Amino acid sequence: MSQPKPMNTIAVMTSGGDAPGMNSAIRAVVRTAIGAEMEVLGIRRGYSGLLEGDLIPMDAASVGNILQKGGTVLGTSRCAEFLKPEIRQEAANILRRKHVDGLVVIGGNGSFNGAYQLHQEHDIPVVGVPGTIDNDIQGTHYTIGFDTAVETGVYAVDKIRDTANAHDRIFLVEVMGRHSPAIAIHTGVCTGAEHVIHTPENTDYDTLVSGIRRGRKRGKNSFIIIVAEGQVPGSAYQVQKHLADNYQIASHVAILGHLQRGGSPTAHDRFIAASMGFHAVQALKTGEVATVTACRDGRIQLVPLQECLEKNDAIDAFSLNLTQQLAI
Amino acid sequence: MSQPKPMNTIAVMTSGGDAPGMNSAIRAVVRTAIGAEMEVLGIRRGYSGLLEGDLIPMDAASVGNILQKGGTVLGTSRCAEFLKPEIRQEAANILRRKHVDGLVVIGGNGSFNGAYQLHQEHDIPVVGVPGTIDNDIQGTHYTIGFDTAVETGVYAVDKIRDTANAHDRIFLVEVMGRHSPAIAIHTGVCTGAEHVIHTPENTDYDTLVSGIRRGRKRGKNSFIIIVAEGQVPGSAYQVQKHLADNYQIASHVAILGHLQRGGSPTAHDRFIAASMGFHAVQALKTGEVATVTACRDGRIQLVPLQECLEKNDAIDAFSLNLTQQLAI
Amino acid sequence: MSQPKPMNTIAVMTSGGDAPGMNSAIRAVVRTAIGAEMEVLGIRRGYSGLLEGDLIPMDAASVGNILQKGGTVLGTSRCAEFLKPEIRQEAANILRRKHVDGLVVIGGNGSFNGAYQLHQEHDIPVVGVPGTIDNDIQGTHYTIGFDTAVETGVYAVDKIRDTANAHDRIFLVEVMGRHSPAIAIHTGVCTGAEHVIHTPENTDYDTLVSGIRRGRKRGKNSFIIIVAEGQVPGSAYQVQKHLADNYQIASHVAILGHLQRGGSPTAHDRFIAASMGFHAVQALKTGEVATVTACRDGRIQLVPLQECLEKNDAIDAFSLNLTQQLAI
Amino acid sequence: MSQPKPMNTIAVMTSGGDAPGMNSAIRAVVRTAIGAEMEVLGIRRGYSGLLEGDLIPMDAASVGNILQKGGTVLGTSRCAEFLKPEIRQEAANILRRKHVDGLVVIGGNGSFNGAYQLHQEHDIPVVGVPGTIDNDIQGTHYTIGFDTAVETGVYAVDKIRDTANAHDRIFLVEVMGRHSPAIAIHTGVCTGAEHVIHTPENTDYDTLVSGIRRGRKRGKNSFIIIVAEGQVPGSAYQVQKHLADNYQIASHVAILGHLQRGGSPTAHDRFIAASMGFHAVQALKTGEVATVTACRDGRIQLVPLQECLEKNDAIDAFSLNLTQQLAI
Repeated sequence: MSQPKPMNTIAVMTSGGDAPGMNSAIRAVVRTAIGAEMEVLGIRRGYSGLLEGDLIPMDAASVGNILQKGGTVLGTSRCAEFLKPEIRQEAANILRRKHVDGLVVIGGNGSFNGAYQLHQEHDIPVVGVPGTIDNDIQGTHYTIGFDTAVETGVYAVDKIRDTANAHDRIFLVEVMGRHSPAIAIHTGVCTGAEHVIHTPENTDYDTLVSGIRRGRKRGKNSFIIIVAEGQVPGSAYQVQKHLADNYQIASHVAILGHLQRGGSPTAHDRFIAASMGFHAVQALKTGEVATVTACRDGRIQLVPLQECLEKNDAIDAFSLNLTQQLAI
Repeated sequence: MSQPKPMNTIAVMTSGGDAPGMNSAIRAVVRTAIGAEMEVLGIRRGYSGLLEGDLIPMDAASVGNILQKGGTVLGTSRCAEFLKPEIRQEAANILRRKHVDGLVVIGGNGSFNGAYQLHQEHDIPVVGVPGTIDNDIQGTHYTIGFDTAVETGVYAVDKIRDTANAHDRIFLVEVMGRHSPAIAIHTGVCTGAEHVIHTPENTDYDTLVSGIRRGRKRGKNSFIIIVAEGQVPGSAYQVQKHLADNYQIASHVAILGHLQRGGSPTAHDRFIAASMGFHAVQALKTGEVATVTACRDGRIQLVPLQECLEKNDAIDAFSLNLTQQLAI
Repeated sequence: MSQPKPMNTIAVMTSGGDAPGMNSAIRAVVRTAIGAEMEVLGIRRGYSGLLEGDLIPMDAASVGNILQKGGTVLGTSRCAEFLKPEIRQEAANILRRKHVDGLVVIGGNGSFNGAYQLHQEHDIPVVGVPGTIDNDIQGTHYTIGFDTAVETGVYAVDKIRDTANAHDRIFLVEVMGRHSPAIAIHTGVCTGAEHVIHTPENTDYDTLVSGIRRGRKRGKNSFIIIVAEGQVPGSAYQVQKHLADNYQIASHVAILGHLQRGGSPTAHDRFIAASMGFHAVQALKTGEVATVTACRDGRIQLVPLQECLEKNDAIDAFSLNLTQQLAI
Repeated sequence: MSQPKPMNTIAVMTSGGDAPGMNSAIRAVVRTAIGAEMEVLGIRRGYSGLLEGDLIPMDAASVGNILQKGGTVLGTSRCAEFLKPEIRQEAANILRRKHVDGLVVIGGNGSFNGAYQLHQEHDIPVVGVPGTIDNDIQGTHYTIGFDTAVETGVYAVDKIRDTANAHDRIFLVEVMGRHSPAIAIHTGVCTGAEHVIHTPENTDYDTLVSGIRRGRKRGKNSFIIIVAEGQVPGSAYQVQKHLADNYQIASHVAILGHLQRGGSPTAHDRFIAASMGFHAVQALKTGEVATVTACRDGRIQLVPLQECLEKNDAIDAFSLNLTQQLAI
């Protein structure tokens, strides 16, 4: 860890898919920095806005009353062209021209890759704050937004459970998480779902159907099956068709889609986001840069950015087993 | 109105699609009847349960703590065979054998048809309580469950609005109401949706797309379009495909499905349901039978069952106009 | 009804206690007026802001994305000095100077008095939109905000019911409504409360306590008692003390206070508010002024302001009876 | 760790204050045990029910559809007489008579003391599952129910914030936690409260009031102050009086009380509770008894009961500092 550079002005952005709790992180970054007598610039719409020079000064009032809001007040984007070195050069130039001494990037592993390159190629002090509803970044046990996304899934399934019990029925509830089964599996545990299809492309229909038949024999008459989004949204309809065509099993579909990205963040997400934002500014101050405010061993730790550049789409075997064991 | 028959024992059922608030109506029927020194039988699973003789005695405690629950504690069903006179004869026999002097049927117009025939053919005193999330029964301005279903739609769109504002995006949110656009239109007004597709089979794409283009010119970058379920659930995907294929407009889909049937009923639904249940028992007592506890002129009135046998799928032109005017 | 005056510019304000749904009414007023090619000014902080000339131009975008928000984006105040004629003269002067041709006042009966005087004394065309959580304005069956306030009360009692059933306990839940028992009574019906104290100053303790004792004999072990706020907030503590001192009955207190003023408005409040805002602008256009967009016979009607100047704090006997009958 | 005893029959109870998520733990205990071919008895109303021999057999269906419910389906109690050795002897006799080989106690440190004595004195294999909204048990970083209690506090403050912004006002919101400031401090961080009074008996009024005055100078016109319950519920009224009498500062009070004990548990509480219940049964199976399923280093670990017998009412200095820093 080298001698910390002076941080007179820092910038903060949100990047990639938006996640509930990002506003709490922005607020914490801005106010911690102001408390440490730094100037703060907000970058609008992620790397795209950075390239357009869309940076606005943030004061304490500018982040008042945003904590409870879904989405991100700074906007966000996915910026494919940031993969090109010459584009990143341009970004570095803009940051220098605006006298930005340090940068906080709130987003997923794609956004961290951009930040990492900015640091490696242009020596920009960066700190990453993990924010994505999918909880799928290597190197951290938690990413901002996951708890809210699961809560929304749980809320939806709780409602469907009411009507499932009124009739004898099977419901397929598709939850978000294109490349990550984490939301599906957690929603399964938290709702007592009868089954979780974590990889719709490889559904084990025989296990699923024999579970339904076993349940019916025991007098169970309603089944809730959580379906991860998989490669293409709408995969619950494929499952529905397959069950109807091959097993003569009728089912009903709900697809939560972007419901799970929105909504006022849970207390849990607000708290973690506030803590991470606070630590991110501390890290810039102390020079512990090219790091991520990761969640490990139950607390926020600074870990090297390199450890957080990959997607983690491993299946959480404990939780998957838990949902199956407890559904009986 | 003839001389009221003595009501020593009454029965209550929920029938057709379940709707939030039905439990409040059941509780009100049971406790009002007990307060009037009647015996009450609960019929399980609607007309199907009646035909199986599945009637259980209800005391005051049996409906304790159910007010706040979604679905219906009595269960429900759609019973196609009840269209046959000989089956209705059987039902009447069962009711007589169980000494049922009057019957309260909580459900939609299909359920009311069954009740009406029981009265016409077998002189069973019946009262209908309108309960369906679709608010599509002739003769009443309101049906139990509609407010909760709209509230759930509004909740969902509010969440999506957060993320719509973070990115530049178009969202298609499919709400329930197979033959009724009421939920779609009300959800549109209450969320400030940019457009409501009330009849997906006849979408006016040119108006829709020109609205989007006009909005974009004015700087609007997110659009929420409510799609009624239409004839076949999943119609939002047809709209999505049509927009992509013919106008190169990308969009995201969420399908609420049975989310809108479940959930704890709103205060509004609990109150109306309690009032209607109370009035239904009064009507049996006073002999004002073959009636429905309809909502007219802002209060509960008893109207003849014949006026409530048809579906009302008229489009509410005032509300549709309101959503368009206010979305600008 | 005289010949309508030309309405080139109108102004809108919220006044008195804020109520959820006011933003939906503001949005409807602004966008309906813009649709009719009027200019619109928003008056900040009610009559106080008017007297300070704090009027801001509103365009369609200024009311974007406010529908779902609690409170009022225009702010509000209680302005005692508006009772003085010379102060109202000043207000009229300011309105003339700003070329305001018509005024929409969203608030309670106090606010309507001010509006009525402005019309009588200075011939300002005014329309009132009833907005107060207390539902206590003469001449209208509904005021914007009431449904949300009751919903919040119901939400709170539902939560307390969970813990009431875990232990054997008595809970006193104080709800808002200083001079109006309507919120308390409706919350009672919608939660199945065992008792409603609608006028804490005149609690009938003997009836209350004998109800508790009767219930306990029947095996009931948890009781929820709704307490109207009464003259002084905190009256639930008086009830608690009285029960402890005179009947050795222990109880737990929750006081909802301003929780019930806030929160995202329910669909019902959003819809009514949008409709009323729309009708208010129509009324200015057609010259049906010095009126209120009242709710009567289940629909919005224009009724003379004079009929809506008094508080309606009558007790809704049907609903009070309903809660008692159904609690058994 | 001695040789594990055979676990043919286990018993489970909830004890002390009820907490949302307890039902998820009960369900996990019952179904994990059944999956391991054990018999399970549910003890009603904690140690009091145990002493009355109120144990009921639990099968898989008996815990169906309870996951989402607040409170505890087994009921709970505080049982002062369990402090007496002769009473515990009686409890041990009853457990032996019912052939109970192991006991899971879901509750707080008081309940753990009873369980510890049962193990020490009578060699009953016991495992504790930490469940209390206060998050105040030594030896574990988390207790079931805390997240839901904070979420409810956050929900309430979010609503009050709406109306705070409409007017210029100061609000005192009293949250639960008689001997623990954790709920108050977390609610403060998660809502951006302007101040947290964590120990109402020792309020530093000068700091509080100078904060308000500084805020007002900067144009802030609404203040939300979280008040921990302290020794006696209703302490917010003492604060209100003190502010009025000594500083002429008016304020409004809300007291959440048992609202925070109830409500459907959050996803977070459901997940942790399910995991802890699962691990508790594993611990009985492997003979790792006289332990607690504690949360340490971000995961569930078995720690000795002796480490969890005391209350932890330390103030979380990081979080308290965070709320102050970020409120600015």
